[in-house]
Amino acid sequence: MTFNIAVIPGDGIGPEVTKQALLVLEKIGKVYGHSFNFIEALAGGCAYDLKGTPLPQETIDICKNSDSVILGAVGGPKWDNLPGNLRPEKGLLQIRKELGLYANIRPAVLFSPLKEACPLKPQLIEGGFDICVVRELTGGMYFGEKGRKESDMGEAAYDTELYSVKEVERIAKKAFEIARKRGSKVTNIDKMNVLESSRLWREVVNKTHEEYPDVTLNHLLVDNAAMQLIRDPKQFDVVVTTNMFGDILSDEASMLTGSIGMLPSASLGEGKFGLYEPIHGSAPDIAGQDKANPLATILSVAMMLRYSFDLEKEASSIEAAVQKVLTDGYRTGDIYNKGTKLVGTAEMGRLVVKNL
Amino acid sequence: MTFNIAVIPGDGIGPEVTKQALLVLEKIGKVYGHSFNFIEALAGGCAYDLKGTPLPQETIDICKNSDSVILGAVGGPKWDNLPGNLRPEKGLLQIRKELGLYANIRPAVLFSPLKEACPLKPQLIEGGFDICVVRELTGGMYFGEKGRKESDMGEAAYDTELYSVKEVERIAKKAFEIARKRGSKVTNIDKMNVLESSRLWREVVNKTHEEYPDVTLNHLLVDNAAMQLIRDPKQFDVVVTTNMFGDILSDEASMLTGSIGMLPSASLGEGKFGLYEPIHGSAPDIAGQDKANPLATILSVAMMLRYSFDLEKEASSIEAAVQKVLTDGYRTGDIYNKGTKLVGTAEMGRLVVKNL
Ligand SMILES: CC(C)[C@H](C(=O)O)[C@@H](O)C(=O)O
Ligand SMILES: CC(C)[C@H](C(=O)O)[C@@H](O)C(=O)O
Repeated sequence: MTFNIAVIPGDGIGPEVTKQALLVLEKIGKVYGHSFNFIEALAGGCAYDLKGTPLPQETIDICKNSDSVILGAVGGPKWDNLPGNLRPEKGLLQIRKELGLYANIRPAVLFSPLKEACPLKPQLIEGGFDICVVRELTGGMYFGEKGRKESDMGEAAYDTELYSVKEVERIAKKAFEIARKRGSKVTNIDKMNVLESSRLWREVVNKTHEEYPDVTLNHLLVDNAAMQLIRDPKQFDVVVTTNMFGDILSDEASMLTGSIGMLPSASLGEGKFGLYEPIHGSAPDIAGQDKANPLATILSVAMMLRYSFDLEKEASSIEAAVQKVLTDGYRTGDIYNKGTKLVGTAEMGRLVVKNL
Repeated sequence: MTFNIAVIPGDGIGPEVTKQALLVLEKIGKVYGHSFNFIEALAGGCAYDLKGTPLPQETIDICKNSDSVILGAVGGPKWDNLPGNLRPEKGLLQIRKELGLYANIRPAVLFSPLKEACPLKPQLIEGGFDICVVRELTGGMYFGEKGRKESDMGEAAYDTELYSVKEVERIAKKAFEIARKRGSKVTNIDKMNVLESSRLWREVVNKTHEEYPDVTLNHLLVDNAAMQLIRDPKQFDVVVTTNMFGDILSDEASMLTGSIGMLPSASLGEGKFGLYEPIHGSAPDIAGQDKANPLATILSVAMMLRYSFDLEKEASSIEAAVQKVLTDGYRTGDIYNKGTKLVGTAEMGRLVVKNL
């Protein structure tokens, strides 16, 4: 089979981690007889520098004409003083919107060879945990009407958290579908005791649940959820929530694993198309130094094979290779501890390729 | 001196924990020669049951005519299906607004006799941590325009996050003032890479900072803050943030202490008036069983003496008595572990009183 993949290396460590992920894909192609065509495209700060916009139309077109997208990371202090609509992050938000990628899937898994990196006490994480955060990605405050205006209290600025029945329905469905393939449990997180949008959100989640009687559903308020994640991460299977709450809670959950450099993500819409990226940022402080951990991007590529191309065997073989390299004791700086073997970005990529 | 204190026991465990706090105050009165007049008032679910509204006008009047307010907790499953404007929580939001209590001070402190209850690994919390979250309490999405409407995507619901320059200025000032009396460091938390209200928020915090050159200021994005709290809680002194982000992050911070039953809070406006309440909820599952931990409410009363009445010595003596009782090994169920002495709500209160 032949797959056309748009590749957006982005800023900071984006290019170097992406490079390793592409090498992994090439090896997969050789071993399993697929061919992957890579088409590079610009987004983020580098796109602003070269084209004056964080998301050139050309990039959107390339993505739309591809079977899926791999993205490294965008942003950095260099662009921090740009106005909102020219910032690298704006490119990321816009690409999600343009491609209709309303479902952000963020697994927070404890990797057993790395469990010493978990900040929680061992007794809280015995047996590990495996949380899949399903975050709404193209609605809410991120995209609602925003601006400056005169209010009762003088000069003010505002953002609008708005959710339609349709938007909630489709993300709830996605969560229930995913739960069916895992632990069959969904925890919905909102703030229905205060927000009107959360009350609609919860009504629609409950209604959608009627089509999934085999999946257990429970609800938590967002403040309580922020506590429960720490108190007992093992209680969670699939978590579904809004764009804003998902941003916060998925980062909290990922920190609990102690291995942010390891966590992939998928952004999906209708159909098979998806955008895959590590959850870590562009880490400008270590960019270009062969220090970054490429495993999150490599695991993102595994998610791509699974979700967009239905290549389950190939996806699993990447995950197994990563597991093997960790078990063999190889570590990049971010996950290094005494007694393990420190390697750089390129060497880590090579080790995964070798184990495929 | 004579102080008039409005007392709102509320729902669930509210009445029993409040009762112990009042006994502590009475003892303080005797020892230090003050007199405290308590005026009871209704709010929350019990007010709805008796008066048809979660916040009767009479309660507002009683509070406005008092020197400060003590509140137990409100809410419970019994009232969960009421419409938004009749829910117990609405009473709480309205009282904050009516009394102009725009600054919610939530200390998250590791109590050394309880440090085994902390969910984090010992090496992350060596030497303890002491975070003071200053949460904006009468603005943002909690109070912005909200409702249902037809959107581009059909039936929808919305809430508005709006902040004025004035609102940000006064909460920022509060944070800098508090920091001056502590570690002289403020961390501002927002989402300025996405929200317009956060961009205004950050501008105003920076501007206000000019009047406090002796205080260090740094900024974190809210998603990163949710991680940093877990990764290294010791990096924080005073944290200032919005109503919504403060709700989430202060609960996350309090869970890190492992002792939610221990944490007090103060809600302040201009002047000395304040409302004091434990940060825990109404815990309906253990209500009326003499199981609840009264220490958070007792410590809230200590905050009241300090912030509203300038009775520093009296406040410290309560805190010392609580510390003594813990060091002596007494614990309510929520903080109990093997080798300590399990006591009930009333006995815990009695022990604090005895040590005053
Ligand atoms: C960079 C930023 C706009 C983005 C977000 O908030 O969505 C990032 O934090 C993420 O979670 O992917
Ligand atoms: C009960 C609820 C409305 C309230 C809030 O969100 O402010 C509570 O969670 C709190 O933090 O005091």
